Amino acid sequence: MQTYLDCIPCAMQQLLRTARLVTDDEAVHLQVLISVGEGLANIRLSDTPPEMARDLYRRLYEITGNPDPYYQLRRKSTRRALALYPRLKAFVESAEDPLFAAASVAATGNLIDYGVLKGEISIEEEVDVSLSMDTHWDEFPIFRDDLTSAEWILYIGDNAGETVFDRVFIETIDKPVIYVVRGGPAINDALLEDAVDAGLDRVAELLPSGLAAAGVIPHLCSDRLQEKFFSAPLIISKGQGNCEALNETEAPIYFLLKVKCEVMANLIQAPMGELVLRRSLNYKPVQDSARPA
Amino acid sequence: MQTYLDCIPCAMQQLLRTARLVTDDEAVHLQVLISVGEGLANIRLSDTPPEMARDLYRRLYEITGNPDPYYQLRRKSTRRALALYPRLKAFVESAEDPLFAAASVAATGNLIDYGVLKGEISIEEEVDVSLSMDTHWDEFPIFRDDLTSAEWILYIGDNAGETVFDRVFIETIDKPVIYVVRGGPAINDALLEDAVDAGLDRVAELLPSGLAAAGVIPHLCSDRLQEKFFSAPLIISKGQGNCEALNETEAPIYFLLKVKCEVMANLIQAPMGELVLRRSLNYKPVQDSARPA
Repeated sequence: MQTYLDCIPCAMQQLLRTARLVTDDEAVHLQVLISVGEGLANIRLSDTPPEMARDLYRRLYEITGNPDPYYQLRRKSTRRALALYPRLKAFVESAEDPLFAAASVAATGNLIDYGVLKGEISIEEEVDVSLSMDTHWDEFPIFRDDLTSAEWILYIGDNAGETVFDRVFIETIDKPVIYVVRGGPAINDALLEDAVDAGLDRVAELLPSGLAAAGVIPHLCSDRLQEKFFSAPLIISKGQGNCEALNETEAPIYFLLKVKCEVMANLIQAPMGELVLRRSLNYKPVQDSARPA
Repeated sequence: MQTYLDCIPCAMQQLLRTARLVTDDEAVHLQVLISVGEGLANIRLSDTPPEMARDLYRRLYEITGNPDPYYQLRRKSTRRALALYPRLKAFVESAEDPLFAAASVAATGNLIDYGVLKGEISIEEEVDVSLSMDTHWDEFPIFRDDLTSAEWILYIGDNAGETVFDRVFIETIDKPVIYVVRGGPAINDALLEDAVDAGLDRVAELLPSGLAAAGVIPHLCSDRLQEKFFSAPLIISKGQGNCEALNETEAPIYFLLKVKCEVMANLIQAPMGELVLRRSLNYKPVQDSARPA
């Protein structure tokens, strides 16, 4: 999707929260806001939000000298999610429909998102609420069919910690999975090391995207990512950032996410807070999808 | 209070909403955001938020050529509030403690605030909810005493429409009241004509502040406002903008408002959404308060 004007003040809030993670010095926070303000002149609304945000984040890194403000939070999120792993497994194993339960676990994990969170969350409490929600996905039967006929799956991860929830889902899918992580720091999104910390290397092949952005933007990613992306029989795309980056790309994509802002709620036609599994409107089976020039 | 860094992205959201009231042209909206972004370099955090916002709004007016984007909304809010007037009067008249009920009506009216609202609200529904809330104000007995001993009251208004709720309160106070309105457009804040539309001219002397800002900043206001402000035996200050502008001013002020952002919630130590009556921490009886040089 394009960048919406509402994404701009929202990005500014996100950058302020990020600056506060790096330092307590308010003068630096203000300097970041001023620099981001200057950067608005370069914004192209035709860029997707993860692409738009890259230049603004670069300004923060230049001012603070810290290229990875979420390093500690990512580790902490993974540890806390790992502590929940037995509960998540039990939830799936006791479910009438384990695949559906595992998909809803993966969607639930998308709540760990410091891009939109205003403070620390109680992952434990939120998970209890999410898992007790009466999730209904109209498209789940089609998803199950597409999954059954796919030889392998490209699974595009989002946040650190959410990785543990994804692992539970992947352990339930009896197929080879390539799990995509970010190629460099982008908010609290999972990098290679975060995926390993979550134990994903035991259940999937790990593939860094080659890009430090909060979404997979195929033409900016590594050749290997592009090769896998455009040959994948089925793609599971986690979270808003990936959906923002990929919703106009012709590929066999299902988006799995929690709706966390009004722009996404409008785009995906689902209320705020909802767990969503949605077949892309630009879903194209792999033989029909062409790699862009 | 000073401007908090959180006020900056929030002001940007507010300006985007305001730009959308003026035109549907997204190119203009973006132009406003870019200009506001440039303006961040001039922000002084030592200014109060209403003062800080003035330069940013000036940019919007220069770009759009519209100095009063809320003109229609103000009129509409007053009309809708007037339709509620009989219900508000009945609520007060049937109350065990009419003065308390009238003060809570006035606080309830502060929900009509397009500075923080994301869209149109159902005033009618919100009023029902607010009036059924179990409001408790520790300082109400002191307020009642201060009100009883005051010869007259300076009542600083906030939003158009809220004026009708203020009128109900003022009709319950058996004292001369001077009602302060903004000296020029500031979001949907009441101007002289809005106060007249609400019928406030029948129950109070109306006094424009001499300043087009979303809060009374005494040293920038007219001589007449300053004279009345610094001689008032009791001041009732409505809404966040006035509280932001006046909470450090030594004067006999009570703040009456609905808490609508985290910064205010922190400042006033009350949860979001709460109706608050609060004696200023810098409350000084009139004989002790000095007009600043």
